[in-house]
Amino acid sequence: MNIVIIGGVAAGAKAATKVKRLLPDASVKIYTRDAHVSYSSCGLPYYIQGNLTDYTALLVRSVEEFAQSGIEVYLNSDVEKILPIQKDILVASSYNADLVPFDKLIIATGASPVIPEIIGIRNFNNIYTLRTIEDGINIRSQMLKSKNAVIIGGGYIGIELLEAFSKNGLNTHLFEKNSHIMPSLDSDISLSVQKRLDKVENKNFNIHTNEFVTEIIGENGKANKIRTSNNLEYNCDIIVICAGVKPNIELAYDSGIEIGETGAIKVNKLMRTSYEYIFACGDCAEKTHIVSGQKVWVPLGSTANKEGRCAAMNAAGIYCEFEGVLGSMVTRCLNTTIAMTGLNEQTAHKVGFKPVSAIVNKFDKVAYMPDADEITLKVIADKVTGLLLGAQAVGSVGADKRVNTITSALLGHLTVEQFSSNDITYSPPYSPTIDPLLNAMQILCNKTSRSC
Amino acid sequence: MNIVIIGGVAAGAKAATKVKRLLPDASVKIYTRDAHVSYSSCGLPYYIQGNLTDYTALLVRSVEEFAQSGIEVYLNSDVEKILPIQKDILVASSYNADLVPFDKLIIATGASPVIPEIIGIRNFNNIYTLRTIEDGINIRSQMLKSKNAVIIGGGYIGIELLEAFSKNGLNTHLFEKNSHIMPSLDSDISLSVQKRLDKVENKNFNIHTNEFVTEIIGENGKANKIRTSNNLEYNCDIIVICAGVKPNIELAYDSGIEIGETGAIKVNKLMRTSYEYIFACGDCAEKTHIVSGQKVWVPLGSTANKEGRCAAMNAAGIYCEFEGVLGSMVTRCLNTTIAMTGLNEQTAHKVGFKPVSAIVNKFDKVAYMPDADEITLKVIADKVTGLLLGAQAVGSVGADKRVNTITSALLGHLTVEQFSSNDITYSPPYSPTIDPLLNAMQILCNKTSRSC
Repeated sequence: MNIVIIGGVAAGAKAATKVKRLLPDASVKIYTRDAHVSYSSCGLPYYIQGNLTDYTALLVRSVEEFAQSGIEVYLNSDVEKILPIQKDILVASSYNADLVPFDKLIIATGASPVIPEIIGIRNFNNIYTLRTIEDGINIRSQMLKSKNAVIIGGGYIGIELLEAFSKNGLNTHLFEKNSHIMPSLDSDISLSVQKRLDKVENKNFNIHTNEFVTEIIGENGKANKIRTSNNLEYNCDIIVICAGVKPNIELAYDSGIEIGETGAIKVNKLMRTSYEYIFACGDCAEKTHIVSGQKVWVPLGSTANKEGRCAAMNAAGIYCEFEGVLGSMVTRCLNTTIAMTGLNEQTAHKVGFKPVSAIVNKFDKVAYMPDADEITLKVIADKVTGLLLGAQAVGSVGADKRVNTITSALLGHLTVEQFSSNDITYSPPYSPTIDPLLNAMQILCNKTSRSC
Repeated sequence: MNIVIIGGVAAGAKAATKVKRLLPDASVKIYTRDAHVSYSSCGLPYYIQGNLTDYTALLVRSVEEFAQSGIEVYLNSDVEKILPIQKDILVASSYNADLVPFDKLIIATGASPVIPEIIGIRNFNNIYTLRTIEDGINIRSQMLKSKNAVIIGGGYIGIELLEAFSKNGLNTHLFEKNSHIMPSLDSDISLSVQKRLDKVENKNFNIHTNEFVTEIIGENGKANKIRTSNNLEYNCDIIVICAGVKPNIELAYDSGIEIGETGAIKVNKLMRTSYEYIFACGDCAEKTHIVSGQKVWVPLGSTANKEGRCAAMNAAGIYCEFEGVLGSMVTRCLNTTIAMTGLNEQTAHKVGFKPVSAIVNKFDKVAYMPDADEITLKVIADKVTGLLLGAQAVGSVGADKRVNTITSALLGHLTVEQFSSNDITYSPPYSPTIDPLLNAMQILCNKTSRSC
């Protein structure tokens, strides 16, 4: 049995390990364009910040470790073509320039940064995107000799880099073309993020919303200035583009594998593509949203791991269903934790719910505790059924605890009425006597006309 | 309409405020034996430790504030008798020595410390229990002039005081007669607590299990030594008894109000006692366990608040059901967070489940993050149905996040199979790529022979 995996960061690496464990006699090969395999790309902002001694801390499993368990890894290998009917892939690399046969193929090609149309964006060598270990190494190296930074885009990678640059003393300008950073959040909660960031001591950064970079200017291959849609200019020694990602589907598309409505590779619950012996998982694959039932594309490392595992099981002939995602995420920028799960209010409307929401501003623990910090928590429910739809939280480290508590509630399709009797842990260093979650439920019980 | 409330710490204070808001024209009176009303007794260990500037930070609402909203509070008032048929209470206090009539009565008499049978335990004035603000003031005052402390009992108040005494430089011995501290935890998890506490730097305390104090020795009204069941002696300047609490039911019992199987006042979901116009809530009232469906007695401030609210609503004629408790709790001792929810393994057996469990030792965030700390997580499920039954976690601050995530799952009666597709938030500063909760679910899927 020949099992071939294309891509080896999170989903691909997980799939390879799992399938080899299930089928020890199978030949398992990973082909990746990357110079590294099996690493934590989510950790790159922390490597850049200087939290890790060395980039090798990001490596989960080396080529040698894969080899020891009988998995062949081909780095720097471009897969040029998938031939689904004859069950071959065409590889161009220093190792292999041939057709490689497969019985089962797992596509885990990931995603790539979106490069916006900006004058000069391809002309200078101090402009970066952040996806691979090489990107991380290059950004850190350039950051260490820079004074002024520009970040293009205020999604989670943008704000994680803002933290990294700010902590390293760079004067940083972040530009978000939308009206608020972290566009997956509702604007009220995103505004709370900005309010907290405004209070950071010795603030050495500016977040510009409704403003985008129109031109990058420089000389001798180095960008040194940007111009924005407000016709303002800012100096810079380093520019990082964090304008979102897109799924790497070209290889699948060119081979006639079906692409879903979201633009990612269409898969069923078994992670099967339109060919039953070809699977896709991780950032290149489409997902189902557990709350809305709709197709979505939320590329995240934790999902990639689960999907990789599930694809491997089905490839090995062991039935496994992947239920879908809640769109859960957490990130940090300096003094602020940002977390969300489920649908935001706008999406909830769009998919046909009648969302109502409760916003609670409260201390994360009893107010008299010396390190009490604030949380802004938003919980969203359907007015008609009382069903919980999602939650967003901003503030102290306790923000992600509240959101995680909602993930299980969404999974269980709980109503606000049911959740209002939740027995959440309480003690002064961990929570107010009445947790913000329960305050929010009270408000939602009223808004959905439920007695609870 | 006369509404009388006996007790005014958490449940009583909440009930009074809520009922007055619902029935602004009613007369609402609180009678309490205590010298204070409406305060956070859970905060007393932190007041003793010195985290609060002043004990007044623990006061939620003063007598004057109650008066302003039209609620009369009678402090230091002993209610001697409830006359359920004639609807009077008999009060002996400096304010009132008379019969006070009621239309609705809410009993919120709380709980009292258990005093174990130890020779000399009532002979000395440096022996304390911790329940009221006066207790807190007295313990703090004695602590500040003490070098050696003895704590009798290793429940959560015992270990919270251990933190307070340790941080204040006292040499402390804690004695727990059972084989492990925190007896509501399974012994394996309790052992993890002790292992972590053993690693505290400059450790100035000892936890003795399977050992109890048999005699307290002293002179001139001051205890200065204790003797234990191992026939060892330890010096002490302060002794605190933390040997558990019992519900204050005498008043209810003497009046013919029914007492439940757990020894606390029997109530239905509406917080009604055996008299439909008499309610009981908070630490004096029996509770229903949401997972087992059985009657339990878990006295906690967060539950008291919810029950007080619910009792007030029903007293005001607005239907409210209190579903019950999960036995959720969190506490801290120095470097260690301890949290649990649901049934422990022993109780799960006792109530008829066939429990299986998974224990995971893992970092609370990605291992390369500089402040990564460990968590030991135990999740318990029923082998037959796969139903989640409970969780216990010990370790870093992230321990309570995992347990809170399980509370919603218990409320929704999720199986390990369902939970295994939970989309928990992930980012390196907050969680490993595969959260310990998901590792535990994988193990439980195997142990319950489920494909997930």
